[in-house]
Amino acid sequence: MSRGMLETIVPEPAFTSAATTLDPRLTLETPLVLQSGEALAPVTVAYQTYGALNADRSNCVLVCHALTMDQYVSGAHPVTGKPGWWSDLVGPGKAIDTERFFVVCANVLGGCMGSTGPKELNPASGRPWGLKFPVITIRDMVQVQVKLLNHLGVDKLFCVIGGSMGAMQVLEWASRYPERVFAAVPIAGSYRHSAQNIAFHEVGRQAIMADPEWRHGAYLEENKIPRRGLAVARMAAHITYMSEAALHQKFGRRFQDRDAPTYGFDADFQVESYLRHQGSTFVDRFDANSYLYITRAMDYFDLAAENGGVLANAFAGTPVRFCLISFSSDWLFPTSESRAIAHALNAVAANVSFVEIESDKGHDAFLLDEPEFHQTLQGFIDGAATIRGLPRRGSHTP
Amino acid sequence: MSRGMLETIVPEPAFTSAATTLDPRLTLETPLVLQSGEALAPVTVAYQTYGALNADRSNCVLVCHALTMDQYVSGAHPVTGKPGWWSDLVGPGKAIDTERFFVVCANVLGGCMGSTGPKELNPASGRPWGLKFPVITIRDMVQVQVKLLNHLGVDKLFCVIGGSMGAMQVLEWASRYPERVFAAVPIAGSYRHSAQNIAFHEVGRQAIMADPEWRHGAYLEENKIPRRGLAVARMAAHITYMSEAALHQKFGRRFQDRDAPTYGFDADFQVESYLRHQGSTFVDRFDANSYLYITRAMDYFDLAAENGGVLANAFAGTPVRFCLISFSSDWLFPTSESRAIAHALNAVAANVSFVEIESDKGHDAFLLDEPEFHQTLQGFIDGAATIRGLPRRGSHTP
Repeated sequence: MSRGMLETIVPEPAFTSAATTLDPRLTLETPLVLQSGEALAPVTVAYQTYGALNADRSNCVLVCHALTMDQYVSGAHPVTGKPGWWSDLVGPGKAIDTERFFVVCANVLGGCMGSTGPKELNPASGRPWGLKFPVITIRDMVQVQVKLLNHLGVDKLFCVIGGSMGAMQVLEWASRYPERVFAAVPIAGSYRHSAQNIAFHEVGRQAIMADPEWRHGAYLEENKIPRRGLAVARMAAHITYMSEAALHQKFGRRFQDRDAPTYGFDADFQVESYLRHQGSTFVDRFDANSYLYITRAMDYFDLAAENGGVLANAFAGTPVRFCLISFSSDWLFPTSESRAIAHALNAVAANVSFVEIESDKGHDAFLLDEPEFHQTLQGFIDGAATIRGLPRRGSHTP
Repeated sequence: MSRGMLETIVPEPAFTSAATTLDPRLTLETPLVLQSGEALAPVTVAYQTYGALNADRSNCVLVCHALTMDQYVSGAHPVTGKPGWWSDLVGPGKAIDTERFFVVCANVLGGCMGSTGPKELNPASGRPWGLKFPVITIRDMVQVQVKLLNHLGVDKLFCVIGGSMGAMQVLEWASRYPERVFAAVPIAGSYRHSAQNIAFHEVGRQAIMADPEWRHGAYLEENKIPRRGLAVARMAAHITYMSEAALHQKFGRRFQDRDAPTYGFDADFQVESYLRHQGSTFVDRFDANSYLYITRAMDYFDLAAENGGVLANAFAGTPVRFCLISFSSDWLFPTSESRAIAHALNAVAANVSFVEIESDKGHDAFLLDEPEFHQTLQGFIDGAATIRGLPRRGSHTP
């Protein structure tokens, strides 16, 4: 394996294993034509890489992040100081082994961790984009990732993987760029956002827009933040990430720091206190307008509608190896959604394995230490790596 | 049957079959000692009656309403003009036949349709109660209903029935006043509010409190209404009342008045438009502080905790005949909750029947025209009426 080639392409500190605030960034000056028809320029992509690209550039794993996640997959997060969101899965010796694979993760278009989004400056006005930012889609996010990988010298991904909104990007990749994907792992995802999920998103957006500090999207210009609206949006969403069983086991009806009810509107119950905490900490790390744009991108995602109403058409003749994973207690992206994808892939005789993991942790399970999930992933990746001709685990020469 | 006796007790227009804005009201001057220990006086109860009390006062059905419902069970609602919320079930010849039964429904304590609640005047200040109103519980609501029935001359109910929060009141009645209840029908209910349900309520409350127009609860004094916060609360709650399947069948991903997405934040999808409508119309008929107090009352409900942690203790030796009804697609108060009640009742050898109705309409099914539900209810009520010695259907002499 050689690191030399890549070092000339990717600016430092792309090769440090821990994420830092000094993201490598790529700026695309050529206007990006969005799915809406609008053109956007320039487009900056903030990303992180872990591990090294091998000589034949065949070991790249693209990780696609979920709604409120970012490019800090592994190592310490520069804002929160907490471990990256998939540190359990991505790192030396982990299922996505950074000693074997060159792992890339980019903050999505529309995000708020360095990539172009509504909180960045609109070059036309010199002020934050706000609601002047064009509505973007999952396809647009993937378009930008394609350009990033071109820049990194990766023609074909060994694997594209992600959970939740990440799974949508994985499906978009496999559907639109099948020749550039060897293996695809959509986890806890769907091929189209359901009416119920659109409804939950709409509640969150309305909560943000109802906050007078939102200022019709221009809060940054006025030094305001719609803290309360964004916190309410997060609270509502957070309930959907957990199963009823997980909430019951974690909190039940236990009181917070008291033995009896106060008969008031304080957070008497632990679950209230927990939700309020989730809401208030979210505000410190996420931009309200990004929340609007990214939820909207998910709402618009419908891979069947874009293929004449027949999902299988999205994958006709696909050479991609798929591994679909769902979680039994996930009610936001239930197993039935993954099963529908599996049926479509079966209809085009694709190479697909589909595993429902027994878990009581709900949608969040894809972010948690779930041994059966990790083993499933490990098995699929090892198998695919062998077929791809990549060295076995532990055989790397650092 | 004689109507004479009751006419001296209940003010007009209690005997009209259609609800009117001229509710009969009862005012209790003696302070009501609440579960919190606080005393509340005076307490006014706004209620509706349908049909007539028979000579031996044995045909009274008390209907307990849910969170956002009111005393207008049947006939036209005086505010919305729509049919009462259980018009399909309550009326001449219906399952709860107002030609056989004397049906009573009272606006709950803490409500906003005439009963004492946070929007009524605090006699100490001459201003609306607002947050000075004491926190109330399901037990307090039932206490008030007991006093109303005393006033109406009803010692023993033929039946107490209700769905959702109404079911909580039914269980409270059966547990605390078993000698005053012949039959009890808790529908789509629970013996204690779950962590997930507390969480959803907390989101709604935070949405209301986040609205600056809420004014720390004093909005009525300042001629404001927290419209946006209350609408968001209603939107979030409304999702929980419907099943994923019902949302999918009703709206799917269909666009509202357009053929293609607008790539914006308008209500592109029908489900968004529907939710916004639900939110905005709710504000016209419901008080934001009442929403806070009533959701809180539900949160505090835990019939097991109040009986040494053993639900069966709440019903030891009960003479009450129970009919438990749940709906297969109700994920807010799932069948497992009703089953737990059935188990507790079985443990004390109570007379209980338990039916899960197959329905794809979610929690709202108890308000909808579900034939199997109506037949089940009809069968139970007819059987119980026979045992109670009430005349058969159609044998009344008006």
